This record gives sequence, C-alpha cells and structure tokens, in this order.
Amino acid sequence: MSTLIERLSAVLGERGLIADRGEMAPFVTDFRGRMTGAADAVALPANTDEAAAVVAIAREHNAAIFPLGGNTGLCYAAVPTPAPGRPAIVVGMSRMANLRAMDRAANVVTVDAGMTLARVHELAAGEGRQFPLHLGSEGTAQIGGLISTNAGGTGVLRYGPMRDLVCGIEAVLPDGSVYRDLDALRKNNTGYDLKHLLIGAEGTLGLVTGAALRLRQPNRSFAHGWISVTGPQAAVELLSRLQDRCGDAVEAFEMLNRAEVDCVLRHIPRTRLPFETTPEWSVMIELAHTDPDADLVAALEEVMAAALEAGLADDAIVAQNEAQAQDIWHIRHSVTEAHKIEGVGIVHDTAVRNSAVPGFIAAADEMSAKLFPQARVLVVSHLGDGNVHYILMFPHDYWRALPDGEAKALEVEMAVHDIAMRFGGTISAEHGIGRKLTSELQRLGDPVKLAVMRQIKQAIDPDGMMNPGALLG
Amino acid sequence: MSTLIERLSAVLGERGLIADRGEMAPFVTDFRGRMTGAADAVALPANTDEAAAVVAIAREHNAAIFPLGGNTGLCYAAVPTPAPGRPAIVVGMSRMANLRAMDRAANVVTVDAGMTLARVHELAAGEGRQFPLHLGSEGTAQIGGLISTNAGGTGVLRYGPMRDLVCGIEAVLPDGSVYRDLDALRKNNTGYDLKHLLIGAEGTLGLVTGAALRLRQPNRSFAHGWISVTGPQAAVELLSRLQDRCGDAVEAFEMLNRAEVDCVLRHIPRTRLPFETTPEWSVMIELAHTDPDADLVAALEEVMAAALEAGLADDAIVAQNEAQAQDIWHIRHSVTEAHKIEGVGIVHDTAVRNSAVPGFIAAADEMSAKLFPQARVLVVSHLGDGNVHYILMFPHDYWRALPDGEAKALEVEMAVHDIAMRFGGTISAEHGIGRKLTSELQRLGDPVKLAVMRQIKQAIDPDGMMNPGALLG
Repeated sequence: MSTLIERLSAVLGERGLIADRGEMAPFVTDFRGRMTGAADAVALPANTDEAAAVVAIAREHNAAIFPLGGNTGLCYAAVPTPAPGRPAIVVGMSRMANLRAMDRAANVVTVDAGMTLARVHELAAGEGRQFPLHLGSEGTAQIGGLISTNAGGTGVLRYGPMRDLVCGIEAVLPDGSVYRDLDALRKNNTGYDLKHLLIGAEGTLGLVTGAALRLRQPNRSFAHGWISVTGPQAAVELLSRLQDRCGDAVEAFEMLNRAEVDCVLRHIPRTRLPFETTPEWSVMIELAHTDPDADLVAALEEVMAAALEAGLADDAIVAQNEAQAQDIWHIRHSVTEAHKIEGVGIVHDTAVRNSAVPGFIAAADEMSAKLFPQARVLVVSHLGDGNVHYILMFPHDYWRALPDGEAKALEVEMAVHDIAMRFGGTISAEHGIGRKLTSELQRLGDPVKLAVMRQIKQAIDPDGMMNPGALLG
Repeated sequence: MSTLIERLSAVLGERGLIADRGEMAPFVTDFRGRMTGAADAVALPANTDEAAAVVAIAREHNAAIFPLGGNTGLCYAAVPTPAPGRPAIVVGMSRMANLRAMDRAANVVTVDAGMTLARVHELAAGEGRQFPLHLGSEGTAQIGGLISTNAGGTGVLRYGPMRDLVCGIEAVLPDGSVYRDLDALRKNNTGYDLKHLLIGAEGTLGLVTGAALRLRQPNRSFAHGWISVTGPQAAVELLSRLQDRCGDAVEAFEMLNRAEVDCVLRHIPRTRLPFETTPEWSVMIELAHTDPDADLVAALEEVMAAALEAGLADDAIVAQNEAQAQDIWHIRHSVTEAHKIEGVGIVHDTAVRNSAVPGFIAAADEMSAKLFPQARVLVVSHLGDGNVHYILMFPHDYWRALPDGEAKALEVEMAVHDIAMRFGGTISAEHGIGRKLTSELQRLGDPVKLAVMRQIKQAIDPDGMMNPGALLG
C-alpha cells in the first residue's frame, strides 16, 4: 500500500492526494449521508495527464478506481466499495474545472470534467448562448458526473438528456490510454461511437476527464400557464395539441396530482394557489422560443381555450407577468422540500412512454391502495418524457414503528417497478442504477442486454478496475 | 454447403431464399456497379424470428452474414466479401417492410428494418407529423441501412443524423439472440446504450431488424433565400447571425462555390440564376417553423440586410413565392447530376467544425492547385454541419489518358483527407467507411479508438461473422 500511495504522491503532489482517514470522509460518503464506503486514497488530479498516470499506477497495483464528480447522485454510484483486500482510489475531479475552449461559431464549449454545471451556464450566457440542462444540484454537479449518469432534469422534453447535449468526450480508459474525441463534429461516421458508450456508463468503462458541449441560442419569448385537467389521459391529449400548435416551443410540461400540490401548499411558505380549490390533476406549462416576436401567450391561450371547450380541462390560467409565472414554478420546484416535512417518501424514478402514463398511474394506484394503504400517493411527472416520480408517502409515526424500514422500502420499490415493466417502462429514467438498483436491474433487466453489457465491460475493463460494484453489481 | 442451403430453405421457404447465381447478381453488386462480391445464398427473412434463425444456422456452419438494405450506399458496406472457403449469406431485408405500431401521442412509429424512408415519410404525414431525414435515395434506402450507416442528408443541421432520430432498435446479435429495445422511452438510464453502438456499426455487430423512430411536428412557416457572400468566413458569420435571430428555425444552410453553380447552370435544364453574374460564394438558406404565424420572411430579410450592411455579402434575394424557392433548390439538388456530365469528379465526404471550414477550404485549394492543376475545384457544403463535399473535377479526356485511374483517385483522396485531419476533421462525415475507406481509417484513425472498436467487435462477434471486411477491414 505504501508504495501505491508514494507513487501517487510523486505524480500528484501534496494538493493532489489525500490519504488521511478523516480528510477522506466526505469523499467516501454520499451527500445525503446514507451510504459510506472506504478508500485508501483520494486522488485529485490537476489535468488529464495526471489522471492517466493515476489509472496507470492503479493498474500496476491492481487497485480499483472510483470516479467522483460533485457527489450529488441519488443512487450511490460514487460511493467506493472495493472488494476486501483490493486497494481503492477515489479519483475526484474538482481540481479539473477549467474552460478549455469556447467556439461560438460552432456553438461548442470544451471544458474539464470537473467544471460545475452552473459554471457552464455562466460561460454560455457570456456568449449569448445557453446550455439547456437544468437540475436542482447544478451549483455542485460536475460535467463528468452528469455525463456518466446521463443526467436528465427539466429540459429533456425539448433538448434531450445529457447524452443529446454532449458532442465530444475525453476519458482515461482502464488500460491507462486516453481516448480523445473533442473535435465535436456534427457529422462523423468513422466507426462505433464510443462517446455514447461512456455516457451513462456510471464510470464503469473509463474516467471522463473532459467534454465538448453543444450550446443553443437562448429563448427570448415565453409563456407560462397552469391548467386543471380532468386526468392523466386528458394531459396526454393536451400535450399532443400543444405540440401540434407550438412544436418545439413546448419547454416544460409537468403534471402533479392533488395530493402533491396540497403537500406543497401545506408546508412551503409563499405558495399561492391561483384556483379556488386544488385541481385533481394539474399541468404546469412553459412555452419558450428563440424568436423575440413569437406570441406564445396567444398560442397558449388558444390551446387552453380549445382544451376547456373539448372537456379536457375545467380551469386554466396563463401568467400575465413574471411574478405570476414565478408563483407557478415556485410550487413545482418546492416538491422535494415539502416531501421531507410531510413524511417518509419512497420516491421512484420510473418512466414509460408518455402515451402509457395514464395506464401506469392507474395500475400503480390500484396496487398502492391494496398493498400500502398507510401511504398517500403523490405524483409529480415530467409528462412530456413519460417520467413519473411516483411517490408513496408514509407518515413519520408509521415508519418509525416499522421493524425494518429498508425492507419495507424495497418491498414498495419492487411493487412499483413491476408495474413500470408491465407498461414497457424503466426502473430508472434519469437517476441511474448506481449501487442502489443493481439487484433490481438484474431482476428486471433484459437478459440479452445485460449479457452484452457484461461482454463489453469484460472487453474494455477485463480486471474490473473501474468503479466495481456500480451498475453491473 | 448443401446442408446450409437446405436448412435455410426449410426456415425461409421458396420466396425467402435465392441460391441461383444469376438471380443473386443484383444482391452482390453495389448499385453503381463499381464493386461485385460473392455469396452462396441470399436470405430474405419475412420476420424477426426468421432473421434470427438465419443467423443461428449461419453460426452452426461458420458462415458469414452480409446484411443488405436498399443497396444505396456509396462505400460498398453491403457488398459481400467472404474469406476464401467461408460460406457467405446475404441477408436482404426487403420482405420486412411492415408498420408495427404508430403511437401519435408519443410521437413514435415502430417499423420493420426493411421499410423505405419514403414510406416512413408517408406514414408520418398521415398522422400530421414528419420524419425529418431527407436524402436523394429515400425511395429506395431502408431504415435498417440508414441506421447501420447513421445516414445524414440535408436535415442534420436542425434535426441531427439518423442517430438522433432513432429511439429504439431491434437486432439479431451474432450469437443468434435478439436484442429488443423498442420501448422508445425518452428517458432510460439502465446501463450502456447498445442502440448507439449498433447505429453506425455498418452491420458489424448485428443485423438490425426493427426500429422505433421519433416523429416531429411538421413545419408550417417557411422562408427561402440565396445570398452572395464574400467568402466562407462570411458564410460562417452569417450562419451565426441567423441562428442568433432565428434559433432552431434554420432548416438548411448550404454553401456552393462559383465553379459548382456554373457547372449546374451549364448542364442542367431549367436552371435560372437570380443574379446578373454567378456569385463567388453562394449560400442557400431555408428557414422553417412549426408555428403557422412565424414571419420567417421578415426575419430572413432582416438578417440579410444586416449582412449586406456589414459587408459580409454583396447581393441577396429572398424568394417571394413557391416558384422562386423551387428555382433555388433546383440548382442545389442538381449538383450530382451535373457532376456526371462535367467530368470525373473525385468527391470527398469530409467534415470539420463549421468554424474550421474556411481554413480547411483554403488549405485544400492550395494543395489542389499545386498537386492537381488539371482539376477544377467544386465545393458544395452543408456548412451548418461543417460537412464539405470537396470535389476535384477532372476533364474526361485527361482521366481517360491516365494509366491507372484508381491510383490517381486514391492519391487525391489521401491528400484531401490529410488536410481534413489537420483541421480536426473526419474522412467520412455521412457516407461511412464501408469497404471503400478501411485502409484510410487505419491510416488516419485514432489508434486508441480503433483498439477499443476491435475489443468491442471481438467481444460481441468473436468469430467475425457479421459483415466481415466492412468498417474494421
């Protein structure tokens, strides 16, 4: 071990290596403090050469590498879990946070993997552009982690997940070689697209050290609304009508059930309901467009009026100013905070096609009422993506009295996952598998796909050196 | 051999198997008649089960599988070239041309791999949607081939290549198992995305049998223009200004040099130049939007006026009616036909970032003038994608007098490819590698990438059964 540490130290210097147990603590525990791993050292390379050297040294010592980004993941993909006796190195990317190049004409920015998402937003804005990935942890989440987990968020409906926004990757492969694909060409048909293999691989195939990201023109026209629809099926139909009328301008289309909105109203200050009573099903809409002259408010009013006429909805408001728009989105964005106060929520990251959302919710409701009558069901859905965060909210008292909370949580999760699979869906829409869902992936995943994944892992990382324990278990 | 044919015949029936040399001829030669291969049988499965059975039988006989779509490829990826003594089966997909499912609410159509692109366009239009991949051969090209070659075309600037339009794939893998990923979820983070590995793999990892395709809303507002810019750098700047003003509405942005436009005017009937003299550099523009009320003509006029003012251009027209718009695009779309009459054109499918296009063209011009003074240089570029079809056009007489035309063609190609690489570009933007560019890929490709490609090929297809000779050589 001492040789390993010495060799790392020689490459990384004092600032680049932590081997003290106390100092390592924040690097081996997930940010919510739910899972703690162990490592022999935390390497903080300052550049790609150092990162490649760390991997090469690890290889010589048969050490495992555990990549760490901003540590904001929800599935413990970044918690180091080495096999007994195998040396473990956490490789944190926080010192690699530089801008490498801005190419405004090509709409491409090239950055180190350790740059935060918020910093990318700033850089894009400085050039009159936007980088349209948005999620709660953007001040902390790093580009490398967002790539490795193929992060989603609220912009997927229009812009796609991280996968669709990355146009180049640099990564250290398990053999210590560096894959450099930062040319960021819009068209390049010269063989297998390895970029797409690394995206969403949760660090199991290589250590992402840099990326080229595609920038977009910023939006300059907006409209915001909240419509009380008669149910999930009406919401699907409304989305279709909205897309027919406004095409790409549909920026957000979020559906919440009454229990979810009431939960927020109950716990979060400065929340205002623009209706007399809470709608059974709410849809919150944002339209946005680059054209400064687009009259999106008129378009939204037109579609809403037609939806009311057609009986898809019974009430609707269009924000008349910025403050009213903020009131709508304040409620939507306060969901997670409200949940913490309300009780113990077992949150799922299921997705089906948006056309299958009504059936999925109905089946899940039936199951929940039967198997978990103690729970209230909250629904918050990125409906445009078919992504349903289906939540069983248990009272604190009930949960505290359980003999084994974890077993109960797993019971709930398996029941909801079974229903997602029945509707052609997925057990992880945007959070990934990490170390949380490996057994569920083995239980429910397509055996053909899992077999090919193992073949690829074996081919690229035959010694199981990169993030062992994550994704493939 | 007779056992192999008998077993295939038992599965496929009379309509599904061709073993007669004469009848096989069109299946073993590329559509331009430039390259002919050989096979022992042509299998035409009627469904996925039959396709899987063909692969399983081939495996038992150590036969090679050569997938065949519409046979419109330009790089011979579908010409069967078995190793001496190894049985060879061409698997044509023409009998698998059915619609499997239309899901309008999810904007997804699921089809057999043998369906033509034109048929997909019809199906989409029937639902008030579009499938925005467009290329010359769309009446013949099949979805499976378009996936396997990650086809490009004229819509890439806005909609991306085939890769960005496919949301699910079904494929028979070399071991005979069937990978089924047709759920077409917008969000699904459950491991390596094998779909992206099969896209652009040119049939070397599996036989694509079905696909789920993402539909878009159709455009309902349009504007068309032709602007005489002062050079490629001005064209890049104009594109940036246009995107600043119109964002996603930039549907096409095509740049041609004077020699290219003159070539078309000389040879193609009913071509009308809307300027007094042919511009040194032409940019042809289409704006399009789903919003029926978008005033794109005004936006285009505004950007063009500013470009003239700024000295980026010296003349410009905006089409005032459909006929004028057609006149512009008639010239653009007649390029290939005009080339055939003009002489022997050595066409390249290079791409660099659009910001690097001016430097690439200048360097290529310098090289061409020095090394190939007999050739006239024609340039037609999907500038928005950085894709430059750089063409050295040799007079028929000169070419006929050469002792070895193929050697000269290779000399030209290598010289242009070297320059593309110097500008961080690619030797194949949209046509693929096939059997035409394998040696160039080995010569110029990133060794790290090539090594990983071979690892993956070895892992998934250890016996080199799927389309041997293509892509990896």
